[in-house]
Amino acid sequence: MKPDFSKHHGLLPVIVQNIQNGKVLMLAYMNELAWDKTAETGKAHYWSRSRQKLWLKGEESGHIQHVREIYVDCDLDSILLKVEQVGGAACHTGYASCFYRRYDNGQWEVTETLVFDPKEVYKK
Amino acid sequence: MKPDFSKHHGLLPVIVQNIQNGKVLMLAYMNELAWDKTAETGKAHYWSRSRQKLWLKGEESGHIQHVREIYVDCDLDSILLKVEQVGGAACHTGYASCFYRRYDNGQWEVTETLVFDPKEVYKK
Repeated sequence: MKPDFSKHHGLLPVIVQNIQNGKVLMLAYMNELAWDKTAETGKAHYWSRSRQKLWLKGEESGHIQHVREIYVDCDLDSILLKVEQVGGAACHTGYASCFYRRYDNGQWEVTETLVFDPKEVYKK
Repeated sequence: MKPDFSKHHGLLPVIVQNIQNGKVLMLAYMNELAWDKTAETGKAHYWSRSRQKLWLKGEESGHIQHVREIYVDCDLDSILLKVEQVGGAACHTGYASCFYRRYDNGQWEVTETLVFDPKEVYKK
């Protein structure tokens, strides 16, 4: 049993949630290859739409996601991962969550503080 | 300021989370019209990909989502809504969350109990 990768050109959205505090960390995409790699290794793998390649989350930063629970939705075409996030932050910007900006009266307000400095983590 | 509806053919994924208990309820999509309607009314509106129309969540069941907080991700192309879910269940199947099945050793295991009977709510 797998999600239905015959839908949406084989690319399904994946919600990633911190299993410890319930925070939604990011949204990514999986194709069947990324699903298989994730199920096999217990480490979150996604399909990078921008780079068009398989992506082990944390391969560069070391901020791997250990997958503890995997859920699928009623239509079998969205996935929810509950993970332990190594390094405490999922976002390449250095925030714990990619959703670090809240909409407030037509403005975006930053609601988190930086967990790491991206320049130090990515050495770029 | 809005999410970037110039991306992904104007259709962005929306993660919906129960603000009271942190449960991820569903994944839906918004186009700019759905965004505007949601921001204007405080009730979650989505774009139904199957019906190709604007969709007020709960229009048929009465299980409306009152939007309390809206977040956008680092790329401005994914949205997170924190909502109060009227009726206690977001899924048309009658479960609180659309993610009511967990992957376990190659099988899907139902991890929730029904909140309502879909036949009674939808009168179909």
